[in-house]
Amino acid sequence: MEGEKWVLMVTAKTPTNIAVIKYWGKRDETLILPINDSISVTLDPNHLCTTTTVSVSPSFPHDRMWLNAKEISLQGGRFQSCLREIRARAQDVEDEKKGIKIKKEDWQKLHLHIASYNNFPTAAGLASSAAGLACLVFSLAKLMNLKEDNSQLSAIARQGSGSACRSLYGGFVKWTMGKEENGSDSLAVQLADEKHWDELVIIIAVVCAQQKETSSTSGMRDTVETSALIKHRAKEVVPKRIVQMEEAIQNRDFSSFARLACTDSNQFHAVCLDTYPPIFYMNDTSHRIISCVEKWNRAEGTPQVAYTFDAGPNAVMIARNRKTAALLLQRLLYNFPPQSDTALDSYIIGDKSILGDAGIKDIKDVEALPPPPEIKDNMPTQKSKGDVSYFICTRPGGGPVVMSDETLALLDPLTGLPK
Amino acid sequence: MEGEKWVLMVTAKTPTNIAVIKYWGKRDETLILPINDSISVTLDPNHLCTTTTVSVSPSFPHDRMWLNAKEISLQGGRFQSCLREIRARAQDVEDEKKGIKIKKEDWQKLHLHIASYNNFPTAAGLASSAAGLACLVFSLAKLMNLKEDNSQLSAIARQGSGSACRSLYGGFVKWTMGKEENGSDSLAVQLADEKHWDELVIIIAVVCAQQKETSSTSGMRDTVETSALIKHRAKEVVPKRIVQMEEAIQNRDFSSFARLACTDSNQFHAVCLDTYPPIFYMNDTSHRIISCVEKWNRAEGTPQVAYTFDAGPNAVMIARNRKTAALLLQRLLYNFPPQSDTALDSYIIGDKSILGDAGIKDIKDVEALPPPPEIKDNMPTQKSKGDVSYFICTRPGGGPVVMSDETLALLDPLTGLPK
Repeated sequence: MEGEKWVLMVTAKTPTNIAVIKYWGKRDETLILPINDSISVTLDPNHLCTTTTVSVSPSFPHDRMWLNAKEISLQGGRFQSCLREIRARAQDVEDEKKGIKIKKEDWQKLHLHIASYNNFPTAAGLASSAAGLACLVFSLAKLMNLKEDNSQLSAIARQGSGSACRSLYGGFVKWTMGKEENGSDSLAVQLADEKHWDELVIIIAVVCAQQKETSSTSGMRDTVETSALIKHRAKEVVPKRIVQMEEAIQNRDFSSFARLACTDSNQFHAVCLDTYPPIFYMNDTSHRIISCVEKWNRAEGTPQVAYTFDAGPNAVMIARNRKTAALLLQRLLYNFPPQSDTALDSYIIGDKSILGDAGIKDIKDVEALPPPPEIKDNMPTQKSKGDVSYFICTRPGGGPVVMSDETLALLDPLTGLPK
Repeated sequence: MEGEKWVLMVTAKTPTNIAVIKYWGKRDETLILPINDSISVTLDPNHLCTTTTVSVSPSFPHDRMWLNAKEISLQGGRFQSCLREIRARAQDVEDEKKGIKIKKEDWQKLHLHIASYNNFPTAAGLASSAAGLACLVFSLAKLMNLKEDNSQLSAIARQGSGSACRSLYGGFVKWTMGKEENGSDSLAVQLADEKHWDELVIIIAVVCAQQKETSSTSGMRDTVETSALIKHRAKEVVPKRIVQMEEAIQNRDFSSFARLACTDSNQFHAVCLDTYPPIFYMNDTSHRIISCVEKWNRAEGTPQVAYTFDAGPNAVMIARNRKTAALLLQRLLYNFPPQSDTALDSYIIGDKSILGDAGIKDIKDVEALPPPPEIKDNMPTQKSKGDVSYFICTRPGGGPVVMSDETLALLDPLTGLPK
């Protein structure tokens, strides 16, 4: 193969996910084995996803990777774990059209070029690493013709980024913590696909943060080491909630789903606060969003919207259905209108059709929004412009897919370099 | 006695206190019996206290009370519990000079006038009800010549406001939760008086709050009913911390004291967050104060300052000694300078001499403060004017005292009405 010039490549698209029963704390730092099960909802890749092109060529002198068009190092232990695990499972590959044959033992010598792109801001606290590592593993598995199914692949993605394992499926996904020391049974299983409960609508508030955040890796290590409550959470509280959440999803029982998602998000942030030194991921804006949702839910007597927050101040809100989502968007825009120099079109992104359902065409409609009835008797609400950067409207979505349209590849099919 | 015109009165001054192992959660709502022991530091009554004058006269047609010169109702169950318990223990009283004789059975028929005054803003989250109820019970006990000691009186004050029982002593005080169903053994004991550890200096940041706070009464009820972590805290975590905190106080071991106070404050706020709906008492300013202290403590390698927050955003910081307190004040003023229209003299209140130790004479000295060394390499700190209303400098202080100087009484000795 030496001296040959061909480039073989695969492009795939992988969703991000949001945990509704949270993963926080590892029992093994290297293998990334968690101290409890977790459950997530996969977000529609049309609005939030990673696209990755992986390519192999005998002309590549070493492995290289580009993220959002900028070359990054592949030397990190987590990338290396994933690459090693996948190469170890590589199979014979034949592309008859291009006249390419790769024997499984060749994969140990061949080098890779990888290009990855997020269709949403990286490091805005939107689980970009989960989608990214899942996409890396999924696309490499396709390139190298692995026989493993997505669940087995999830155990590899897990070693790149814990929550990445849950991005191998669409819909509703459980990461079972497993019992084996080598982590072979710590993997994702699909509880239900995205069509099972297709009424749900998701609105994400990307909240402006003033303070630098604690990384989730060091944060969860500190929690496991110092929190007096985390063990009780992992051993006593979460196992019951996992069973209840599986039931709620199975029965499309929104009230139970919302109650579990909200309380588990709050408890995750509670154990962060119980860490020493304490970790604060939510800020005053996050608190105000929670108050807004809680007031409304209480006024309705039954939950309309669930909220959940990851390791940052952004709120992920899950509405019962489209009608509720429109009412939620009205409330959010009433409390958090865009700054005067922000166009509504860039303030509400993703599935903008919910704006229409909410009866909002332009900024004048936002300004004309009446206070929601549940705050009628209270003091005039302080409207905070600039506390939210933008909102993303989306829904539960599907799992990873290979993109057969080669024009969508991020690498040049001749050079294997970023386009 | 009918038709007589005399007025007999007693004036007392009672301190407020700040818990360093927190009380949160009742096992009996009426008797106010807690689910765990707690430990507090009594604050110097020169800076934070309640003064109460209680008076009795055969000419008073019914019980009346004034708080900060405004008449308030005494009909609340908690006031009534305290009055009933004290009247039941009243003894014969004789004032030979005034020629007054009250037999113990007369107390059931005689009515009281009570006037109370806080030398600090009421309802600014500074435990005004603790000092207030303690002072009410203490002064009535003196008026009615009760034989009970302060510990026994604390069990009465407890029924007015839980944390009030800890204000019956100076220095370091433990409220033992007790076992009896009638609450007779749920009372305060002094661990050490204020002279035992007289190096400590306390700085309170009164933080501006945007949101209305959840009352601690309803907040702790909600926590007991809904938090999945509160039982574990009360049964497993707090008992160990109580033993450790008693040791730390006994040995004047500031490192242990600080670590326990900070982690227990954080855990109290963690169980608030684990409540449904979640309760937020700390805000972004509280978080920034914690970060400021934690960064400094970490840089020094050993704790210089402990922090603790009650059911509100105000920070109570306890410094190792005067030198540390001066360094703390520099850091606080660097991060939270007064607004341009606020005089330094009204921004730092209480023991202003610490300003001198910090080398700060006027606002120009505040503006000239260099960034503390521990943040040198970081981004330029955002200075927030207006996030803190003012700082109170104080120290651990003594318990309740009777004020023999009758000119300090809040009621007119002839009419029994507010002066």
